[in-house]
Amino acid sequence: MTEFAAVILAAGKGTRMKSDLHKVLHPIAGRSMIDHLMASVDALSPVRKVVVVGAGREQLESALGARAATCLQEPQLGTAHAVQQAQQELAGFDGDILIMYGDVPFVRAETMQSMLDRLHMDDAPAAVVLGFEPEDALQYGRVIADDAGRIRKMVEFKDASEEERGCRLCNSGLMAASAKDLWALLDRVGNDNAQGEYYLPDIVNIAIGDGRVCAAVTTNDASEVAGINSRSELAAAERQWQELKREEAMAEGATLRAPETVFFSWDTELGRDVTIEPNVVFGPGVKVADGAHIKAFSHLEGAVVGKDAQVGPYARLRPGAVMEEGAFVGNFVEMKKAVLGKGAKASHLTYLGDATVGEGANIGAGTITCNYDGYFKHKTEIGPRAFIGSNSSLIAPVKIGADAIVAAGSAVSRDVGDGDLRMVRGEQIVKPGWADRFHDTMKKKKAAEKAKG
Amino acid sequence: MTEFAAVILAAGKGTRMKSDLHKVLHPIAGRSMIDHLMASVDALSPVRKVVVVGAGREQLESALGARAATCLQEPQLGTAHAVQQAQQELAGFDGDILIMYGDVPFVRAETMQSMLDRLHMDDAPAAVVLGFEPEDALQYGRVIADDAGRIRKMVEFKDASEEERGCRLCNSGLMAASAKDLWALLDRVGNDNAQGEYYLPDIVNIAIGDGRVCAAVTTNDASEVAGINSRSELAAAERQWQELKREEAMAEGATLRAPETVFFSWDTELGRDVTIEPNVVFGPGVKVADGAHIKAFSHLEGAVVGKDAQVGPYARLRPGAVMEEGAFVGNFVEMKKAVLGKGAKASHLTYLGDATVGEGANIGAGTITCNYDGYFKHKTEIGPRAFIGSNSSLIAPVKIGADAIVAAGSAVSRDVGDGDLRMVRGEQIVKPGWADRFHDTMKKKKAAEKAKG
Amino acid sequence: MTEFAAVILAAGKGTRMKSDLHKVLHPIAGRSMIDHLMASVDALSPVRKVVVVGAGREQLESALGARAATCLQEPQLGTAHAVQQAQQELAGFDGDILIMYGDVPFVRAETMQSMLDRLHMDDAPAAVVLGFEPEDALQYGRVIADDAGRIRKMVEFKDASEEERGCRLCNSGLMAASAKDLWALLDRVGNDNAQGEYYLPDIVNIAIGDGRVCAAVTTNDASEVAGINSRSELAAAERQWQELKREEAMAEGATLRAPETVFFSWDTELGRDVTIEPNVVFGPGVKVADGAHIKAFSHLEGAVVGKDAQVGPYARLRPGAVMEEGAFVGNFVEMKKAVLGKGAKASHLTYLGDATVGEGANIGAGTITCNYDGYFKHKTEIGPRAFIGSNSSLIAPVKIGADAIVAAGSAVSRDVGDGDLRMVRGEQIVKPGWADRFHDTMKKKKAAEKAKG
Repeated sequence: MTEFAAVILAAGKGTRMKSDLHKVLHPIAGRSMIDHLMASVDALSPVRKVVVVGAGREQLESALGARAATCLQEPQLGTAHAVQQAQQELAGFDGDILIMYGDVPFVRAETMQSMLDRLHMDDAPAAVVLGFEPEDALQYGRVIADDAGRIRKMVEFKDASEEERGCRLCNSGLMAASAKDLWALLDRVGNDNAQGEYYLPDIVNIAIGDGRVCAAVTTNDASEVAGINSRSELAAAERQWQELKREEAMAEGATLRAPETVFFSWDTELGRDVTIEPNVVFGPGVKVADGAHIKAFSHLEGAVVGKDAQVGPYARLRPGAVMEEGAFVGNFVEMKKAVLGKGAKASHLTYLGDATVGEGANIGAGTITCNYDGYFKHKTEIGPRAFIGSNSSLIAPVKIGADAIVAAGSAVSRDVGDGDLRMVRGEQIVKPGWADRFHDTMKKKKAAEKAKG
Repeated sequence: MTEFAAVILAAGKGTRMKSDLHKVLHPIAGRSMIDHLMASVDALSPVRKVVVVGAGREQLESALGARAATCLQEPQLGTAHAVQQAQQELAGFDGDILIMYGDVPFVRAETMQSMLDRLHMDDAPAAVVLGFEPEDALQYGRVIADDAGRIRKMVEFKDASEEERGCRLCNSGLMAASAKDLWALLDRVGNDNAQGEYYLPDIVNIAIGDGRVCAAVTTNDASEVAGINSRSELAAAERQWQELKREEAMAEGATLRAPETVFFSWDTELGRDVTIEPNVVFGPGVKVADGAHIKAFSHLEGAVVGKDAQVGPYARLRPGAVMEEGAFVGNFVEMKKAVLGKGAKASHLTYLGDATVGEGANIGAGTITCNYDGYFKHKTEIGPRAFIGSNSSLIAPVKIGADAIVAAGSAVSRDVGDGDLRMVRGEQIVKPGWADRFHDTMKKKKAAEKAKG
Repeated sequence: MTEFAAVILAAGKGTRMKSDLHKVLHPIAGRSMIDHLMASVDALSPVRKVVVVGAGREQLESALGARAATCLQEPQLGTAHAVQQAQQELAGFDGDILIMYGDVPFVRAETMQSMLDRLHMDDAPAAVVLGFEPEDALQYGRVIADDAGRIRKMVEFKDASEEERGCRLCNSGLMAASAKDLWALLDRVGNDNAQGEYYLPDIVNIAIGDGRVCAAVTTNDASEVAGINSRSELAAAERQWQELKREEAMAEGATLRAPETVFFSWDTELGRDVTIEPNVVFGPGVKVADGAHIKAFSHLEGAVVGKDAQVGPYARLRPGAVMEEGAFVGNFVEMKKAVLGKGAKASHLTYLGDATVGEGANIGAGTITCNYDGYFKHKTEIGPRAFIGSNSSLIAPVKIGADAIVAAGSAVSRDVGDGDLRMVRGEQIVKPGWADRFHDTMKKKKAAEKAKG
């Protein structure tokens, strides 16, 4: 197979987003638009990726790291001009070039592949255009092609004849061409138009004028080429993504009582017979094993939920939370970098941070691992079958032994041995009748205040 | 009225559910499909109920208990064959037989009754078929009937003529017949078809061939006979159920600010002028009295909410929670087997388990009833007008008297008398300048770590 | 400009609401219907506002205060009769009168203005009617008018000819007229109809009979004149309001990952590049500054969220909560009348009430400001960079100094100086092997109980 490079255009100003964040870095399902696109491109193993950037280059470079080169388009003179900016980065490369847009994130790898494949069919097209057939084609440029997908003409809507407007095949803007053809054709694109811009689709008409074949590949899913230009379109893309993911999750054997209230991340993994109640939000990096039950109002991120484990309601699992088989995390409980052993329970109002909890241990309501001293984080280790009484503070670093007991309300700063009890108890003070006298005094004071107004 | 027995077919493999749980045991609005169906059947007082089961018989028997007999269909040779399996269980019974499907849970009792009634009209039909008129009839078998509902022919879609396909009355599969007719007709059903199965609708064509009348009863609500075969269809059924329930709740005088975010259980009871904010989930067994206000993000199950009581936001009422008139449960508060007296308040970050709280008592933030010692649950009794200071641990069994006060941060393991104060206080240690010295040391340590990298 | 007075009809029984609360006091987006309407009326500076009331007058008067006069319609003999009740309150007023309905809350000020403007055009209409063109006009009374909006006839649907029914312009019931014309015309309205009521639209036909011009002003947004008669319609109005507000928020530069799960108040203010995760509820009085991040399951009311501040998930900001720039409020944290200084953090399971927290301070998990003694609220003041250890109880009134440290689990009732450490510690009791012996005893007891059954 011929090697290919991807050129991703991301120089648009994104004005309608009204954001200081570069448009293509806005996330959908917890992953930036450009990362969604790059994942599909990467599935086809490109030899190079070049992102053409305008404003916000530093943001993009910092997000992309070594994964792609960037080059600057400044000033911005149209899409043909944008692609040309990548030429220097691709100097010496003589394979195929796939042209994508950073704000058109959901093009499938299969579609990209069929564009590249089309380049190598017998009629050797000079360029391949991805076409689509929207329900309402009105405003789009048209691709006038024969039944075999050979293009007769690319035409802007405003320049199209009545008959051409009747054609439903629209131009997505996405293209493929060999490097050699592409650079040669781009050099010949002019800017003799109302905007004074150099338009990429012009290369098709130029090639056709040369007697070359140009071909259209058509996606039958118009949503694949939908561009995102505003936060409202971003939200619509998120909704569409979530709907697909929810259907997929249900098809694979998860119960979603109210699918429309469950929000997945791009990489959420669910086992079979997982139940997810209404209003659950998944951040990136969550794996849920078979039979687990995620109750309402739970929030999971970077967490592993073991087989038959129970989560929530109102449980928050933060990165590094690991629940082993049959573990139980109840309401108003937060876990972060913490392992809850097999069958262990933290049922209510608890914070487990930088901690390990052994098999079968029971963490009482209100338990807090005091993992931070204002400067460093420290670890709490709780042994198997240990019982931590309610409202305890475990001041890390600290170890609680196997089968040990910490009495309710204790602030424990020293280790507790296996099978030992630790109890921190203040003086028990009883003042008989004190409360009655207090009530009398306060009621009078309250009455006096009221009288004053 | 002639007695009737119900035969419920539930032998389908439910492959598309991808679940280890029997298909008809999957819940909608907190009640299994088959229990929804059984409730409608039971409204008509059947003398017997027989569920025909394939795989998962133990699960079903355990769920049904004494409420229905089960019989095994093994191997599974079609719906006629399935019904025949019930014959032995119904030996000697000579009333009517109503044939339902466990995965068609929302047939109304009125519809079942009209099927049974139809059997006893003057034309004495040998069988009654429940027909429906879906918006898109395409794939269903057709019931070819005259205007009086007398069936001329039952026909599978694939075998139907163009004219027959134009008929909109479809076969739901649900039937009624007298025991005598049913067993006799079933014996004559053959399996001379592509699948080699014995099909129940064939009894109609056989009876008609004998010159008997067979009749169709038509439901005008096609959703009544919708079958559930996948988790996606399960979610759709849940959605439809919830939408009806929400409209009903609003019609009865409850305010739902965002009805689409409120999830009821099959048995939720709401009073008049109840307000329910967005994102509230009801599990089974909840009753809410007039004027109560359920705030956002609340989760209620097996709980009683008294008149004008206030719940949430973020309140979790578990089974056995009882809030009396005007009681108040605030954010991040959990109640389980606990009574909160008239006007009593638990406003924040509290766990009340196995507890009674008297009228007008005030439970401070962070209060925890330590009800579990790792082996047994114990009770906490709090008297009227008692004041429990914040972050207290009440170590059950323990009683706090009327008007008593527990000081903040106390772990109380002994009873407190009426009007007494109890206070558990450690030594107050002040180390002047210690924090400043600590900050100096730690900042240096932090800087050193950073320097190391 | 001619002065105008507004007459707002609110005497309807609201039977379908099934509520003890007056219909027009039911809230949409946190503001009562009548207040939505009054806000639009007030934008045009009326000289008087008169609300015509039936049952529930006290509720309305108490809600309206000095903002509008009320007058009683008793008995209720129709809309013309209702308007007449306002005549005494408007004695001597000779400007224009705008007639609105309390249960039609979303008429825009622009629309009201164009009704008033129309009164003063050259043809000097005796009355101006607000017409609308619904998708399905079937049940509404028709306004038969020429192209210039001059009315030929007002006709109830039941009395309309086939041709008149074909007219799509419907009568909203909203009108404007000069006081002089209005009172004179109202005197001539009869009740010779099936209901025996005096109907307001009759004044138009009477005026036309006199040879006067009457004019229609048409709104092109039929939703503007939608009346709310049931809780279901109330919920629909809320939904519509929310959808507009969400789109507006996104257009202004806020990211809403799942807009359909975010509920705004009528007065919510959002800065640029604010991110709002799924399931966030805003009560009245919230301002969110640029770059702030509101995470899932948060609930805000009467709160100020500073620049780049982070909220939630599961954070509850109650009235008087102020987060300064970069402040952080994490899960299961409640703030009420409390200021969290620049960069200060309260990350978990905390209640901050009646408190000020200095810049850069760190409030440990489980910290509770004990602000209430059962009678009065008291203040907690925490200095900059102070460190409050987990599970501490700060018993107000109390001051914690700058850079001071409170050790975990301390109940602090006395002030802590700048740079000091305060620590409240009970006796550390260790009982080696006690837990092992306890487990043995309890396991035997448990086994004995089981044996007993």
